[in-house]
Amino acid sequence: MNADTAPWPCVAIVGVGMIGGSLGKAVLQRRLADRVIGVGRSPASLAEALHAAAASETSLDLPAAVAAADLVVVATGVAAIPALLDAIDAAVRPGTPITDAGSTKGSIVAAWERSRGTRRGRFVAAHPIAGSHRRGPAAADADLFVGRVTVITPAPHTPPADVEMIGRFWTAVGSTVVTRSPAEHDAILARTSHAPHVVAAAIAAATPAADRLFTAGGWRDTTRIAAGDPDLWADILIDNGPAVAGALESIHAASADMLAAITARDRRRLVSLLARAKEERDALGS
Amino acid sequence: MNADTAPWPCVAIVGVGMIGGSLGKAVLQRRLADRVIGVGRSPASLAEALHAAAASETSLDLPAAVAAADLVVVATGVAAIPALLDAIDAAVRPGTPITDAGSTKGSIVAAWERSRGTRRGRFVAAHPIAGSHRRGPAAADADLFVGRVTVITPAPHTPPADVEMIGRFWTAVGSTVVTRSPAEHDAILARTSHAPHVVAAAIAAATPAADRLFTAGGWRDTTRIAAGDPDLWADILIDNGPAVAGALESIHAASADMLAAITARDRRRLVSLLARAKEERDALGS
Repeated sequence: MNADTAPWPCVAIVGVGMIGGSLGKAVLQRRLADRVIGVGRSPASLAEALHAAAASETSLDLPAAVAAADLVVVATGVAAIPALLDAIDAAVRPGTPITDAGSTKGSIVAAWERSRGTRRGRFVAAHPIAGSHRRGPAAADADLFVGRVTVITPAPHTPPADVEMIGRFWTAVGSTVVTRSPAEHDAILARTSHAPHVVAAAIAAATPAADRLFTAGGWRDTTRIAAGDPDLWADILIDNGPAVAGALESIHAASADMLAAITARDRRRLVSLLARAKEERDALGS
Repeated sequence: MNADTAPWPCVAIVGVGMIGGSLGKAVLQRRLADRVIGVGRSPASLAEALHAAAASETSLDLPAAVAAADLVVVATGVAAIPALLDAIDAAVRPGTPITDAGSTKGSIVAAWERSRGTRRGRFVAAHPIAGSHRRGPAAADADLFVGRVTVITPAPHTPPADVEMIGRFWTAVGSTVVTRSPAEHDAILARTSHAPHVVAAAIAAATPAADRLFTAGGWRDTTRIAAGDPDLWADILIDNGPAVAGALESIHAASADMLAAITARDRRRLVSLLARAKEERDALGS
């Protein structure tokens, strides 16, 4: 690769919210592309993306934008991704690499694979594990992916060369690429993200407004992700429903163990359960 | 009150960890006392408290220290407080104000009240809602209580003048004083602190070590309090067991509502539940 040439001259990013906007910024600042076309449906949000330097140009015309692109990234909520992939695939130049940034992978990969035989583009699904409860291109951060893990989830028939190429993209924006099957990804994320989201929201919902005066850092930390966007999260949770149900059951079982020790006033047992949880938590640092 | 005279010439703080150390620093920096005697059982931790300027002097001799004090604060874990109150009460000068900083109030107040007729000191229980998962006097912060709520929980027979005087102390270190009955306090804190602690620990415990690579800010925030001290927390949870059980049931019910909507793929219902949780959370800011 010539050092003076951007690896992907033109990148189209479909959906320029916090994640898409951060990607656009990362691509531009790292000179991974000469052009980043931010594609969206609302002139106001596209203007905001331009203002935030999250794209070098914007377009409301998805087919035209992706036809011009050497790489397409879909960075919308998960529910919109399968239909967008179809629309993108119908418009890209044959062989164009496509990836996404959705929080679930099973249904997205399955939807692509159902028409694998007739696809024009080369799609490899991905999930950069780098979120925030903040929204919109104004919250975009060129370094959002630095030091974070991006999970790439190829289907059984995805060519290894495609996996490698999409891996190069996610590595180039600063993340560490790890490969898992779509089902493995969804099971893991149910435990590390989706079920904790439900529990955080449940704590917030179960706290009467009159109790707010009596909350401190613990409640604030524990419920912070409950401030996430209800529409985006409803789609993630429903899409990954069975895995979320399993993960919630594990959390509930751990909580029931602790409650049994509390009710039995079994201090030794409770200390041991809390100590195990602390060990898990301490392993990650603050 | 003469502006040149400290309101309580000598304050004894029994237990100079993070909370007691922060109190000592606050009292000294705000010139609320000329002397702050840090009382403990370990020369090493007392040396640490002196080094952190959390006390002006230290003592291993509890009776002598509290006999010299114009105000005594007990800032140990909750399980130790009832016996310490008895030991303190046996040594103070008659009429000496005593308060504590324990995270539960029902059993502490009940233990004091059982011998109210023969007490020398004047005890009013308190709980400054200002914690941290950090420990020890090195983590002490003179401004820990600023802008935080301290709940004062008088018993039915506590003289109003005593409540007012202890309220002045907690106000003087920067907190906003609110009065509740011990039972009300314990029910509220079960919802805002104790049950969330169990749930955070349950999430941490339910996360396999192999999943750690796939955690991001959401998991870190949600589980942060699980890093708290298992011994201190076991005592709090067991002491407030029935209220914690009730609060856990409410959280579980809210989580079960969300899971039912997820399983039924009832997007409208799930969005509405998540939106209500978000409203509660947003009401507190980040």
